[in-house]
Amino acid sequence: MNDPLTYKDAGVDLDAAERAKRSFASLLDASGDANTLSGLGAFGGLYAVPEGLSRPVLVASADGVGTKLKLAFLSGRHDTVGRDLVNHCVNDILVQGATPLFFLDYLATGQLDEGVAAQVVGGVSWACRENGCALLGGETAEMPDFYGVGEYDLAGFVVGVVERDRILDGSAVRPGDRLVAIRSSGVHTNGFTLARTIVFERMGLRVGDPFPGEPASVADVLLRVHRSYLGLVRPLLADGAIRAMAHVTGGGIEGNLPRVLPEGLGAHIDCGSWTVPNVFRQLESAGGVEPAEMYRVFNMGVGMILVVAPDREASVCAALGDEAWPLGEIVRGSGVELAGVG
Amino acid sequence: MNDPLTYKDAGVDLDAAERAKRSFASLLDASGDANTLSGLGAFGGLYAVPEGLSRPVLVASADGVGTKLKLAFLSGRHDTVGRDLVNHCVNDILVQGATPLFFLDYLATGQLDEGVAAQVVGGVSWACRENGCALLGGETAEMPDFYGVGEYDLAGFVVGVVERDRILDGSAVRPGDRLVAIRSSGVHTNGFTLARTIVFERMGLRVGDPFPGEPASVADVLLRVHRSYLGLVRPLLADGAIRAMAHVTGGGIEGNLPRVLPEGLGAHIDCGSWTVPNVFRQLESAGGVEPAEMYRVFNMGVGMILVVAPDREASVCAALGDEAWPLGEIVRGSGVELAGVG
Repeated sequence: MNDPLTYKDAGVDLDAAERAKRSFASLLDASGDANTLSGLGAFGGLYAVPEGLSRPVLVASADGVGTKLKLAFLSGRHDTVGRDLVNHCVNDILVQGATPLFFLDYLATGQLDEGVAAQVVGGVSWACRENGCALLGGETAEMPDFYGVGEYDLAGFVVGVVERDRILDGSAVRPGDRLVAIRSSGVHTNGFTLARTIVFERMGLRVGDPFPGEPASVADVLLRVHRSYLGLVRPLLADGAIRAMAHVTGGGIEGNLPRVLPEGLGAHIDCGSWTVPNVFRQLESAGGVEPAEMYRVFNMGVGMILVVAPDREASVCAALGDEAWPLGEIVRGSGVELAGVG
Repeated sequence: MNDPLTYKDAGVDLDAAERAKRSFASLLDASGDANTLSGLGAFGGLYAVPEGLSRPVLVASADGVGTKLKLAFLSGRHDTVGRDLVNHCVNDILVQGATPLFFLDYLATGQLDEGVAAQVVGGVSWACRENGCALLGGETAEMPDFYGVGEYDLAGFVVGVVERDRILDGSAVRPGDRLVAIRSSGVHTNGFTLARTIVFERMGLRVGDPFPGEPASVADVLLRVHRSYLGLVRPLLADGAIRAMAHVTGGGIEGNLPRVLPEGLGAHIDCGSWTVPNVFRQLESAGGVEPAEMYRVFNMGVGMILVVAPDREASVCAALGDEAWPLGEIVRGSGVELAGVG
């Protein structure tokens, strides 16, 4: 006869999981809106299609936080990565003209730490409220042997809505249209595997050390929250000022801007139009990274690019204030020319 | 001067990621329907809200595959876990009366193996077609230092729709209502941490060994695909025959059935009404697991429970044929009584 085995013996504590789920209930309630019809405990989350739209189109996107999570593990700060995740997802549907309706998260860990999970989901909930979308549900998975002690993965999923005739699909873009950049807050959520290698191996820094050239620690600088551009951009969208929009994530400007340009059009970027933030200069120098590679991996200070008609450039820049500047223009051809790099 | 560092040196191959994404394009196309408006390359996936509904409500759910993935790693079979994932998610919204519209997946790995990724996403795409929902997009994340060599995590998100006055929320359930069980195909996607401990440590088996009492290997038995109940249940939903429905996942019958019962009602389950499948008997015996624990961790052969009015029980069972049987009834009180266990 074998010793009796339980699920908990095998590494999964259903009671702890149940307690964590209950603690999330208040977070779900806090971010719900009038269209949210379900509470926690239901198998799926319910969200009424908003009324008053003539031909609503749903826009959905899935994303993760990537290895920026390692900075959270190293520094013990777990309340920002959820905000990175939500803001990243919100930006990804914003570029098609959509505003977010609801969000779901997936949090996977080896052994559930209720305090850490509450911080992570707390960040998700916070950002949902900031973006005016409901946190409709999610999954918390306890998977022994998958994740290192104290580690987890975090992914999310957003659904937004746009009127069919207001979808931004790039078809409105014309040669001569202007590009307007909006500032990023830092590295956002891309390129962290390279950034970590440079900071921890080449520079030999630890998370609590001062980051070169900044009055802040390595953790402060690298964990800066990925911005949501929803608040800034929504008035311009309502105004019809924007012909296309690109979120500068993995692949950089040249990997993302062409995704919203029609065949036969490319972009000219004036890389002298802004000062690349210190964090990128430090990474480039300490890592000996080629400038072209830097622009392929990182946002280099440009978090979002708007494409506007020439006669709207000045008013759009004025509306965005210090956050934005004229970045370049749409040209016949293909691809992105980064003028002045290297 | 340091040696120049690239993203690839740090462990992320953007070119391989780009190739994998392109190979997924045909999978997305294959599962799209007339409401799918976007192709790959767009930041978000576009899906038109179906017309002809009076008060459409979206139902969304997130889930993972859990440590069933370890069976895929050990056996080198990566084409079934995507089906587990989609079917699990589809069942989770089906219990609220919703039919799926679209799905997105999140696949995270240490180093992207294009062949494995294509098998995994191929399974997702296959199941989306089977369930009549569009694979609208997804995220493939390459995260060095997060996952063991050859390992990955897989999560998914489904969005479905239901008319507001057809939502199943348990409020229609009455004392005396009958419970109808529908057979599971095996362990589905819950309890794998315990199942793996028993099979690999207590039984000392390997994935290719014959599973006791079955003409099949350990991998065959444990990787059996989580069933989708959409096809079986949809005609009954359309017919108004179902008052509530519970998907038996983590927590077993007693963890899931109460989620769809109103206050003041419980359930009586006749555990002599079916023969518990061999796989669960073997796990119970070899692991020395208490019967009550078995029913708390595993589905024990009951994949889905329907709650129907007493006068519909016979016709519902007849419609479902060999797949279903009378399981018990709704009683005043609370909780689930498993009569005849232990």
